[in-house]
Amino acid sequence: MGASLGAALRKRGAVHRVIGIARRPQVAERAVKLGAVDEASTDHDRMAEADVIVLATPVRVILQTLDDLSGRLKEETTLTDLGSTKADILKKAEAVKLPFIGGHPMAGNERSGVDACDAGLYEGKPYLLVRAATTRPVDEERVAELARAVGARPVTLGSGAEHDDLVAAISHVPYLIAYALMEANPDEDRRRAGPAFADATRVAASHTQMVLDFLLTNGEAIGRASSALQKSLTDLTALVKRGDEEGLRSWLESIRAARQELQM
Amino acid sequence: MGASLGAALRKRGAVHRVIGIARRPQVAERAVKLGAVDEASTDHDRMAEADVIVLATPVRVILQTLDDLSGRLKEETTLTDLGSTKADILKKAEAVKLPFIGGHPMAGNERSGVDACDAGLYEGKPYLLVRAATTRPVDEERVAELARAVGARPVTLGSGAEHDDLVAAISHVPYLIAYALMEANPDEDRRRAGPAFADATRVAASHTQMVLDFLLTNGEAIGRASSALQKSLTDLTALVKRGDEEGLRSWLESIRAARQELQM
Repeated sequence: MGASLGAALRKRGAVHRVIGIARRPQVAERAVKLGAVDEASTDHDRMAEADVIVLATPVRVILQTLDDLSGRLKEETTLTDLGSTKADILKKAEAVKLPFIGGHPMAGNERSGVDACDAGLYEGKPYLLVRAATTRPVDEERVAELARAVGARPVTLGSGAEHDDLVAAISHVPYLIAYALMEANPDEDRRRAGPAFADATRVAASHTQMVLDFLLTNGEAIGRASSALQKSLTDLTALVKRGDEEGLRSWLESIRAARQELQM
Repeated sequence: MGASLGAALRKRGAVHRVIGIARRPQVAERAVKLGAVDEASTDHDRMAEADVIVLATPVRVILQTLDDLSGRLKEETTLTDLGSTKADILKKAEAVKLPFIGGHPMAGNERSGVDACDAGLYEGKPYLLVRAATTRPVDEERVAELARAVGARPVTLGSGAEHDDLVAAISHVPYLIAYALMEANPDEDRRRAGPAFADATRVAASHTQMVLDFLLTNGEAIGRASSALQKSLTDLTALVKRGDEEGLRSWLESIRAARQELQM
């Protein structure tokens, strides 16, 4: 996600300079080679140079980095992230008194790491923004502009809790379903499956730490969203089991129309 | 599915001639124009000319067509289908004493109709075959050869019931999940979703009659497969809710490895 953002910003000439900060030197070198960044470093202190800092790591690493950055940034720096949950992150930014706005582009796929870099990744995608108590108007303006610069569509949500409920339902539960579908079917059967199974399980190949971090920082909302999905699935299965043709037809037709309209 | 099969067979030069039979003249004309068939007709009697007849309609239309074809085919004709369930179809073929072998390519997508024609659709996909009591060795050989000719991988299953249990779990339940995920989320939220939701709901845009027909001819197996999936999802959600990091990590890692190996 981070490398793709860098590549997209550079391709569009949206910023003066993209500096990548990685933990491992091989990753830093590779990011430069792939054109994802103008320069790269493993020195975290170089973050302080930037006008806009984008934290692009799993959620719990973002929490740690906010602690580390506290008191070390220029006043005019805008700090944001690409994390998959927001309530804990916003609470932390407020606790360490950092001006911060949460960002969550609804982009990305099962690939991870710098080699998954794709300058078109954000094109047409929603980019969720969530304000903290410490967010200044300039932070929101800058990150919304950054989102538009990479072709995404900024959408500001009301709170971390609202964000986390939303993504539990539209993202985290689909991830859980992907794992559950894999688990519920023996390997021999999976190898006889077609595109419906391939699509429904694709995200089960995602980076484990990224997934673990959003699951473990959004347990309650995921529990509620999983129950809601199971209720819909139970109702639909009941229609199928009792062969209610007219009931099923009207469901399927209205959902088909809605899905076609989504154009996603 | 039918137009794609015709296009694939013609592209590979696998057969002498592909004749398309459609209900509507516009569809017949379009199939010729798209190169899916050598010629097309709305006259069902022309089926009797063919060495191999492939019924490519929703399941309940296949059942009706088997009734109509009874006693009207040359002895050497091989009769097969592309239907999504098999137990009812095989039973019908046996009842009307037609030599028949069930075929189910695990290909296709949410698009339907002759304009969705894609000569590469079957490439690398499993092509499930199921014998009826009326299947002759030559029928199985011919349809397996046809499957290989379009780049698919023939896999013979033991019975219609085995087939229907398998596809309930790896295909029909993923369809139900797609509808349930759409239903469980208001439209405003769906428009804020990203690729995980897009992938998990894609098949909800499928042709309603095709889906209705497989749901209504496979209710019991779908009920069992839906319960099995819900059990896996409940177990996984419980790990998330109680924040069992080590339990989750080992699940996610083993499933990730299995999904990556599938290469689908």
